[in-house]
Amino acid sequence: MSGFNVAPLEKLVEQFEKMPGIGAKTAQRLAYYVLNLPKSQAQEFADAITDAHTKIKYCKVCCNLTDSELCPVCKNQARDHATICVVETPRDASAIENTHEYRGVYHILHGCISPLNDVGPDQLSIKELLARVNPESNVREVIMATNATVEGDATAMYISRLLKPMGIKVTRLAYGIPVGGDLEYADENTLARALEGRNEL
Amino acid sequence: MSGFNVAPLEKLVEQFEKMPGIGAKTAQRLAYYVLNLPKSQAQEFADAITDAHTKIKYCKVCCNLTDSELCPVCKNQARDHATICVVETPRDASAIENTHEYRGVYHILHGCISPLNDVGPDQLSIKELLARVNPESNVREVIMATNATVEGDATAMYISRLLKPMGIKVTRLAYGIPVGGDLEYADENTLARALEGRNEL
Repeated sequence: MSGFNVAPLEKLVEQFEKMPGIGAKTAQRLAYYVLNLPKSQAQEFADAITDAHTKIKYCKVCCNLTDSELCPVCKNQARDHATICVVETPRDASAIENTHEYRGVYHILHGCISPLNDVGPDQLSIKELLARVNPESNVREVIMATNATVEGDATAMYISRLLKPMGIKVTRLAYGIPVGGDLEYADENTLARALEGRNEL
Repeated sequence: MSGFNVAPLEKLVEQFEKMPGIGAKTAQRLAYYVLNLPKSQAQEFADAITDAHTKIKYCKVCCNLTDSELCPVCKNQARDHATICVVETPRDASAIENTHEYRGVYHILHGCISPLNDVGPDQLSIKELLARVNPESNVREVIMATNATVEGDATAMYISRLLKPMGIKVTRLAYGIPVGGDLEYADENTLARALEGRNEL
């Protein structure tokens, strides 16, 4: 945009460029798209950004994103409140929710223990999780659904060590070949874990 | 996001989903990115959208986007105002500008003649172009740099027929093999045009 110094447009391009996975060309395309929106729709977009920031907060129980005191899952009495699925981010919870297979509730850590990024257990919502699984509550099982990374594994291990003395069943998502995946393309670690976790037919 | 009905977040995701080339997954990723921005930066983003809409208008001469009366190119007396490069969109002008080879000025049509999309000559800034190349002005050459599509060609042809009777030299961008392009991957039309337009070495 060297020759054309349209400051407001360049500012908008910069905003898009900062986004994950958006390069210079895409940022320009998106900025022009926004510029070509009818005024009312552009205002709607700007409002959606501000609204998301002012209206969204953390659920008091599971720390998921919500616009009221409790998130819809924690509020829902039809769900199994004795099973808690622990995930790293709200997006992970939403991915599990989309399977339509899980009827329990969630707990969102908002990250994983990662000494390299200066994230210790205190920065995660582990206190809140421990408060939920106190002896008076009826929690039966905690499913550790952190990422299948070194850090996700370490976080799962750390939390399970805190929960087990309380007599709670702690499980971990199964490792294995992705459904529809070709054996030949699976990496060795995955394949080894799939062998290890083999089930009888 | 079925189970989690966080309305403000879903609204934001929807806004991103409407954008060109942004699918459901990317829209969700971008919405979470915006949500995780510090409040001040989110406000900056929202303001950039509103500002782009309120502050950007068309240059009175070339119809390019600008935040003042005239765009920087039209204002610049060091540029060659006797050569006008006619393009379809502001992005095309910016692409030519980025070559750093062109010292003339631009004219932005804001589209091309396209009966299928109900766009006729009246919807484009052709009147404004004709006003610029009146007999009193010193315009020597008009370069038609519309897209190399059927519609871009037709638009170039239409405008050149209006300009030629006024004694103005009208040229068209060269067709040919892209620089760095392999002959074997060039389509037949491009190759035929490259042959036709061959130059002596």
